Amino acid sequence: MTRPKNDTFLRALLREPVDYTPVWLMRQAGRYLPEYCETRRRAGSFLDLCKNPSLACEVTLQPLARYELDAAILFSDILTVPDAMGLGLYFAEGEGPKFERPLREEWEIRALAAPDPYDHLRYVMDAVTEIRRALDNSVPLIGFSGSPFTLACYMIEGGASDDFRRVKTMLYDRPDLLHHILDVTSQSVIRYLNAQIESGVQAVMIFDTWGGALSHRAYREFSLAYLARIVAGLTREHDGNIVPSIVFTKGGGQWLEDIAAIGCDGVGLDWTSSLAESRRRVADRVALQGNLDPIALFAKPEVVAAEARRVLDDFHAAGPGGGHVFNLGHGISQFTPPEHVTALVNAVHEHSRKLRGRPA
Amino acid sequence: MTRPKNDTFLRALLREPVDYTPVWLMRQAGRYLPEYCETRRRAGSFLDLCKNPSLACEVTLQPLARYELDAAILFSDILTVPDAMGLGLYFAEGEGPKFERPLREEWEIRALAAPDPYDHLRYVMDAVTEIRRALDNSVPLIGFSGSPFTLACYMIEGGASDDFRRVKTMLYDRPDLLHHILDVTSQSVIRYLNAQIESGVQAVMIFDTWGGALSHRAYREFSLAYLARIVAGLTREHDGNIVPSIVFTKGGGQWLEDIAAIGCDGVGLDWTSSLAESRRRVADRVALQGNLDPIALFAKPEVVAAEARRVLDDFHAAGPGGGHVFNLGHGISQFTPPEHVTALVNAVHEHSRKLRGRPA
Repeated sequence: MTRPKNDTFLRALLREPVDYTPVWLMRQAGRYLPEYCETRRRAGSFLDLCKNPSLACEVTLQPLARYELDAAILFSDILTVPDAMGLGLYFAEGEGPKFERPLREEWEIRALAAPDPYDHLRYVMDAVTEIRRALDNSVPLIGFSGSPFTLACYMIEGGASDDFRRVKTMLYDRPDLLHHILDVTSQSVIRYLNAQIESGVQAVMIFDTWGGALSHRAYREFSLAYLARIVAGLTREHDGNIVPSIVFTKGGGQWLEDIAAIGCDGVGLDWTSSLAESRRRVADRVALQGNLDPIALFAKPEVVAAEARRVLDDFHAAGPGGGHVFNLGHGISQFTPPEHVTALVNAVHEHSRKLRGRPA
Repeated sequence: MTRPKNDTFLRALLREPVDYTPVWLMRQAGRYLPEYCETRRRAGSFLDLCKNPSLACEVTLQPLARYELDAAILFSDILTVPDAMGLGLYFAEGEGPKFERPLREEWEIRALAAPDPYDHLRYVMDAVTEIRRALDNSVPLIGFSGSPFTLACYMIEGGASDDFRRVKTMLYDRPDLLHHILDVTSQSVIRYLNAQIESGVQAVMIFDTWGGALSHRAYREFSLAYLARIVAGLTREHDGNIVPSIVFTKGGGQWLEDIAAIGCDGVGLDWTSSLAESRRRVADRVALQGNLDPIALFAKPEVVAAEARRVLDDFHAAGPGGGHVFNLGHGISQFTPPEHVTALVNAVHEHSRKLRGRPA
């Protein structure tokens, strides 16, 4: 049983008492850090970096060397699973992720099969092993995947989309086909995340980046139902510790009660939701993760600190204690001044110790 | 006192009894209609079309000739006000609206002044007069403007943005400057909408396209407060009739109670909100407008009709009656097959007559 020395993040997710509010940032290992850009140059492409366990380990640790973060997150991409299914993930400069062979024909959809995570996704498991060794039980390591609906968006559209016309047309005209894609993808994500847990990640997060583009009704049928299936299929305990799960549907604030009911330990929220109101809605059934607007990091450091305190105060306004993991409401922008993150992390730790009545 | 022959739309907004649910579509006069593309070719650019009252009148009426819509909406752009302020609106092909002279320096912001709507926006008033004449009191004419925050986004960013970095950095670092822009813009929008009312529009809508990008706290301070000021400044009665107002913040479903409290008659909702839940939250204090996903129009006509019925059933699930204006949750896509709109409009009329117990 190897519990990390700093287990504040895991305790917050399990709604156990903590001395302060743990903080990590979505995309904390990324382009806003000059050292990341340097490693990336050595690696070649973004995907080369993801697929090289030693370099993935190196960039995973970079933000922890700079900031007092309470968790590390595996450096990888949300789209590794469809890549392992053979769709051919690539990144066109300045255009985001794309697939060489998006799903266009019914036979392609019927031919989809869940990949063996220890085969085509071996590089992820190797990175997890290497990162865990390098972390030496200092802070927990988070594993992750994209949600089935979000993966399906990219698999069907072939890349980012501003209206999701292809996937939504399938949703309305051929729901059977979309359900088939989501079914195979869910099985794949369960196996993938369980392999990450087996390899050493101590919490998992499912990124439902595009679920918020669905109607309230379609979200429940085509995204949330599969998120629920995944949470139910995850290995609950590994190496003597509970492995908490976090579900994040960007733009899903209206659906919080339903998301909180699927059995996950934490729910991610973007900055459009008040944490106080959210806590009142779901009480202590889940921990909440979030929710500073990432663009607030462009403000002057003293304003960044003030905005961080406002997020903590908002959570605290619904009562003392409670499970809160501080984060942004979306990935950190590549243009963020790195020194502003120092102001953020310090403000979260200092102010939350005051609120939780346990000064450092 | 000239009440339109078909006043269902106005009655629904005022929560008066109606025989069926009125329907109109955001961007109903637009590129998905071949006759629109034909007029646009004759006009030159999109902006030439907006600024030519006869051609603006022509395209305003086109969708009414095809479909049994219950309202017309002035053909114009949400950004006419900052254009009249001298920022130089233009449309780069495939890139959306841009300003030649975005606000970059403090002195430019301090120099902003509310334009006289009868001077620089005369072409809008002329279009309103011409459209009212052509409509001959058949259905009501809706006037509109962008919201102060949405206008400020374009005025500061200089065009569309995917992260609103400039406007949000100003919001956090120089809230005084942003408030000044919003203050002048609000005064301008009030004068502009009142001039439209004076010229003949029978309802007004304020499009807060980007308010949903703000944090829950910033939304209230930088968008909703100015929407409230505008609603309070609108001419309430003209020509013996009440002129109802609709406020639409895309992505604002979580904030419905607060939006409903500013005194507007109707609140627009996108497809992420359930109309039944929304009605339960605000009761009869406002009418609700929405909320079919515009991409549902790409489905087969029978599926389009079924989805329209689901929206009506959703509203009805919270009880009989109630003020509902059927619409999409965002502007209609330029790629929509025009014949699918026929299926939508007919389904709304037929099914709502059944639900409201008044078969045609």
